[in-house]
Amino acid sequence: MKALVYYGDHNIALEERPKPTIIKPTDVIVKVLKTTICGTDLGIYKGKNPEIESGRILGHEGVGIIEEIGDSVSQFKKGDKVIISCITSCGSCEYCKKQMYSHCQDGGWILGYMIDGVQAEYVRIPHADNSLHKIPATIDDEIAVLLSDILPTGHEIGVQYGNVKPGDEIAIIGAGPIGMSALLTAQFYSPSKIIMVDLDDNRLKLAKELGATHTINSGTTNVEEAIKDIVDGDGVDVAIEAVGIPQTWDICQKIVKPGAHIANVGVHGQKVDFEINKLWIKNLTITTGLVNTNTTPMLLKAVSTNSLDLKKMITHHFPLSELEHAYQVFLNGAEEKALKIIIDNA
Amino acid sequence: MKALVYYGDHNIALEERPKPTIIKPTDVIVKVLKTTICGTDLGIYKGKNPEIESGRILGHEGVGIIEEIGDSVSQFKKGDKVIISCITSCGSCEYCKKQMYSHCQDGGWILGYMIDGVQAEYVRIPHADNSLHKIPATIDDEIAVLLSDILPTGHEIGVQYGNVKPGDEIAIIGAGPIGMSALLTAQFYSPSKIIMVDLDDNRLKLAKELGATHTINSGTTNVEEAIKDIVDGDGVDVAIEAVGIPQTWDICQKIVKPGAHIANVGVHGQKVDFEINKLWIKNLTITTGLVNTNTTPMLLKAVSTNSLDLKKMITHHFPLSELEHAYQVFLNGAEEKALKIIIDNA
Repeated sequence: MKALVYYGDHNIALEERPKPTIIKPTDVIVKVLKTTICGTDLGIYKGKNPEIESGRILGHEGVGIIEEIGDSVSQFKKGDKVIISCITSCGSCEYCKKQMYSHCQDGGWILGYMIDGVQAEYVRIPHADNSLHKIPATIDDEIAVLLSDILPTGHEIGVQYGNVKPGDEIAIIGAGPIGMSALLTAQFYSPSKIIMVDLDDNRLKLAKELGATHTINSGTTNVEEAIKDIVDGDGVDVAIEAVGIPQTWDICQKIVKPGAHIANVGVHGQKVDFEINKLWIKNLTITTGLVNTNTTPMLLKAVSTNSLDLKKMITHHFPLSELEHAYQVFLNGAEEKALKIIIDNA
Repeated sequence: MKALVYYGDHNIALEERPKPTIIKPTDVIVKVLKTTICGTDLGIYKGKNPEIESGRILGHEGVGIIEEIGDSVSQFKKGDKVIISCITSCGSCEYCKKQMYSHCQDGGWILGYMIDGVQAEYVRIPHADNSLHKIPATIDDEIAVLLSDILPTGHEIGVQYGNVKPGDEIAIIGAGPIGMSALLTAQFYSPSKIIMVDLDDNRLKLAKELGATHTINSGTTNVEEAIKDIVDGDGVDVAIEAVGIPQTWDICQKIVKPGAHIANVGVHGQKVDFEINKLWIKNLTITTGLVNTNTTPMLLKAVSTNSLDLKKMITHHFPLSELEHAYQVFLNGAEEKALKIIIDNA
């Protein structure tokens, strides 16, 4: 089969690999229909994860059809169309029993990282009963791809951890795929203002189409001052960090009012200055986290009945054969106006 | 009347001052029976709060008898014995309506800071209806003094914000009055292990008497390693920071397991390094805050029926006339084995 293989820093190749087989009775083999490239995959490509073995097939988002099934799998059958969750979880360890699937002691984020991933024609999914979701007929396959990772991530780690409530004034720092996912899922909870902050006017324009009430270009505007002019009180109720660099963390800690939440979704490569000398007194709640995908079933229902225009997040389509090129397009995200790229295996 | 007056860095004096009078109809005048010195008062003495006006009477903890009453006060009458809450609150602003009294727009921490405080024979208490608590006959006056600030602070900002649950393994960094208050009030929620960390063996010994299951001297022991040996899992469920320096914050961020809470209670004078590059993935909740004293009524009931030996926290007694000396004793806390000092006005 064709697969996108990682060989180290800036070294990936689309090549022939053997089709995966069932190893444990809890496994299934999925024939991949559609996949995508995540910001994390770009990080891997850029050499941020030297812990990954050379020869690893990348990718942790996708939809497909179950082709083969292990003896103890009970929730799925051959032929089911499924979302592959970016998080693999056994369902029975200490963390799984708290729905903290991200910290599953025999799973977590392993796909396209510790085991071979979904940027391929076929993929082996361990602990299938707890790591796949059937796709209702009402949901388009491309929307379903967004439910592997980015929508649950924005929803759980941004919106839910940030405790977004009706009437809240919230800010989302970063209008990439994760920030946009937070923007979309925040609307389930009816905040009164959603302020999107980014450096890219093109993305801010799309954010407005997707439901942002205000946008701020942090390259040309003082965010702290601009937010003071927008909100009613002493800052925002919730700040969602969706980038993962010290500058965007710093914006968050400067724009929150007493009692506010800062929900960090960004994947950070370095430590940050935490101005606890100013913030100890502010009764803040700061959260961090990797997605648990415990709200994927909830989002499947919400998405199939809701009018959110999720398709607007999908900017590009490529066949699997052009996956290497697709990485280059996504690397030049701003220039290419790329947000979410769908890779089609057909 | 006699009062302890602040005149700037390392400059306080016990001297004669005019007795306070009612200014607004929501005020009362309290004749102070007992007061104490807070770590915050030591900070003021050491010059950490240059924003305080010279001539300010210090102190924000105490019990007394209502001597005079403003026309619109409805919840109290002359002769009532009351706890003076360290937080003054109007009860009707945006923050008060969320029980965030610490951020009251006409109050918060103002006593002995922005207005004259309780280290005196008499004190004026604004917004009396929401800022005082009647003392039940079952509660000793000296225990009541602990309910002005330290017990609610340890309880609300340490134990409640830290979400201490039955069976949890928790660590409290700092065995001073606030850490001990967290230790005592944590026991209301039945954690399975309470690990106290401090540099002072004498305080750690007292912590054991007050209910700690384990103690670690951070001056002689690697805390991270020692905690690994004590807990069952990958770290503690809750870390309570009760000091307010970068070193103790750092201990907290290094000893928590995935899904854990870090509750910062310490008053910090400088920013800290937040290792978000390691912690973004850990699904942590980090909280900060100034006490709201919204749980003072709850604690009054709990303390009057519970067997916790709160009196053990009181190490010294002085008459008001020796208050300057008492500051010096508290400044040499470790040497003097001082934890909480009661000042008696009688």
